[in-house]
Amino acid sequence: MAAQDEGSIGLVQVSDAYWRATFDLPPLNIFGPPNIPQLDEIVSSLESDTCAKVVVFDSAVDGFFLTTHDDFLAKPEGSARFPAVRSGLQALSDIFARLSKASVVSISSIRGRATGVGSELALATDMRFASREKAVLSLWKVGTALVPGGGPMASLPRLMGRGRALELLIGADEVNGDMAELYGYVNRSVPDDQLDGFVDALARGICSFEKQAIAEIKRTIRLNSLPFFSG
Amino acid sequence: MAAQDEGSIGLVQVSDAYWRATFDLPPLNIFGPPNIPQLDEIVSSLESDTCAKVVVFDSAVDGFFLTTHDDFLAKPEGSARFPAVRSGLQALSDIFARLSKASVVSISSIRGRATGVGSELALATDMRFASREKAVLSLWKVGTALVPGGGPMASLPRLMGRGRALELLIGADEVNGDMAELYGYVNRSVPDDQLDGFVDALARGICSFEKQAIAEIKRTIRLNSLPFFSG
Amino acid sequence: MAAQDEGSIGLVQVSDAYWRATFDLPPLNIFGPPNIPQLDEIVSSLESDTCAKVVVFDSAVDGFFLTTHDDFLAKPEGSARFPAVRSGLQALSDIFARLSKASVVSISSIRGRATGVGSELALATDMRFASREKAVLSLWKVGTALVPGGGPMASLPRLMGRGRALELLIGADEVNGDMAELYGYVNRSVPDDQLDGFVDALARGICSFEKQAIAEIKRTIRLNSLPFFSG
Repeated sequence: MAAQDEGSIGLVQVSDAYWRATFDLPPLNIFGPPNIPQLDEIVSSLESDTCAKVVVFDSAVDGFFLTTHDDFLAKPEGSARFPAVRSGLQALSDIFARLSKASVVSISSIRGRATGVGSELALATDMRFASREKAVLSLWKVGTALVPGGGPMASLPRLMGRGRALELLIGADEVNGDMAELYGYVNRSVPDDQLDGFVDALARGICSFEKQAIAEIKRTIRLNSLPFFSG
Repeated sequence: MAAQDEGSIGLVQVSDAYWRATFDLPPLNIFGPPNIPQLDEIVSSLESDTCAKVVVFDSAVDGFFLTTHDDFLAKPEGSARFPAVRSGLQALSDIFARLSKASVVSISSIRGRATGVGSELALATDMRFASREKAVLSLWKVGTALVPGGGPMASLPRLMGRGRALELLIGADEVNGDMAELYGYVNRSVPDDQLDGFVDALARGICSFEKQAIAEIKRTIRLNSLPFFSG
Repeated sequence: MAAQDEGSIGLVQVSDAYWRATFDLPPLNIFGPPNIPQLDEIVSSLESDTCAKVVVFDSAVDGFFLTTHDDFLAKPEGSARFPAVRSGLQALSDIFARLSKASVVSISSIRGRATGVGSELALATDMRFASREKAVLSLWKVGTALVPGGGPMASLPRLMGRGRALELLIGADEVNGDMAELYGYVNRSVPDDQLDGFVDALARGICSFEKQAIAEIKRTIRLNSLPFFSG
């Protein structure tokens, strides 16, 4: 599978085991309804591939990890597009749940703004690392009500406790890399010039595990951390 | 509703949506049995008011956020007052549980000593912020056995993990602002001269949400973080 | 009970309430099958003693807290010793579960390398403190699959969230004291020259509690943090 056209989600197989999905939707890396089938195809490939062990999600657009098209933010009750929006959200929610359950380790390498779908995707991946200087996270504040089952944000209190989860969902406008590390939103905040090398080394290390061992470890962690409806 | 008399819990409505409850029980801000109906009335008002969105709990007494009357600390087996103490604790426990479930966001702004009832109240509120220089937290060490259902302290391991919760309950004498932040006891430790402004801005930001959205976000967080008996 | 022979796990009663178990297996503090009955005996003594309130696990071997004999690391499917290894792991798993449930507070004072059985033991104790300069933690990466029920590592996501737990289990080679503190793996990282004094003071403080209160606090914490199969 080669890199796809510009203006989509580029998928590169660094090796049989190590895949990389790069959001390349200039100028603002806005994820919209047309990107749903693209993301669905990538996750389907990860699920069915017998060699894939790790996938890194990152961005090719300066200043933006991944943001959200207004269509997703339209309030259901104020929009004639409600059925389509709702259906899109349901589809996204399913894709995120499948990503969490896949026997592939997924890593978000966050540089630039991650908002809405961007923060949901980051929370759906297994690990998150943020550029200390350039990551800006903000949650999709109406998301909890919109996304069926609470979406990946349901995992927030498990990552950081009730008080901090509530602050991020309802209070904080933006979270930088260091605060994201303090709150446990990301695994670690890494100096920007070391982020790519750090994530690359981690991904290559994961490739040294057997695929079956990865699946079992992910399963054990999931049974002991995610809400029942994600099991 | 105007500020109440000195020597009680002052309640001020900064706006329809933004309330402030200030412990003003000089000289040591000791919470005793007579303060139970006062706190109960405040929480009842918050529950029934159709405009309230956020309440900040703070202190008007230098050096003390909120502490505990000896009557609550009397050991049941060594006290003829057992039924009254037990009843008071049950009433407090109910008030704290209602505060957690209310569709109003509650914030503790902790400056000075928070012990016993003070730490229970802080843990019952949705978020906690501590003065970096002036907050001193200590847990009510026999509380777990006394408070029905474990009380808000039952949420400690969810905030900070089992090891740190046990250390605070059974080991550490006092916790300052920075350690409280490291352990996740408070959302953040804020320099003392910035604490009031920080909390005020956060409270005003929360007022921009619709009351129904606040209630739904709190409900989602609660389902994913609090023990079943707090649901 | 006096200190045991060199080359075993030394048990010293600093006082009736305060016990100390010291791994003294030079030159590398390797825990092997013969050490299982020794650890079993120590935990049995802690369970049955009516005065013991706290036990500190530490090391007498420079550079090593506790490591693991190759026999435990043999892959079941590649070893004729499978039944013995499996049985040893089952026995260890039971000992760790009993330690978690005992009405004695257990503390790991980690200086040097803690790998395999060493990290499992540390996670089974109630609290962990690490030498800032000299602790090196690494997880027994195939452990989750081998240890029945997931072992103490099942508690990792509760201590630090899913993303960090997965990184430690599948990614990070080694964790030093400060990273262990940031991730919540240990309660705190303490400067090496203060570690012994800090843990000693904590242990003596715990001895001031009544044994029954300790048991009740541990029980409340356990109900609110550990997975059901550890209850």
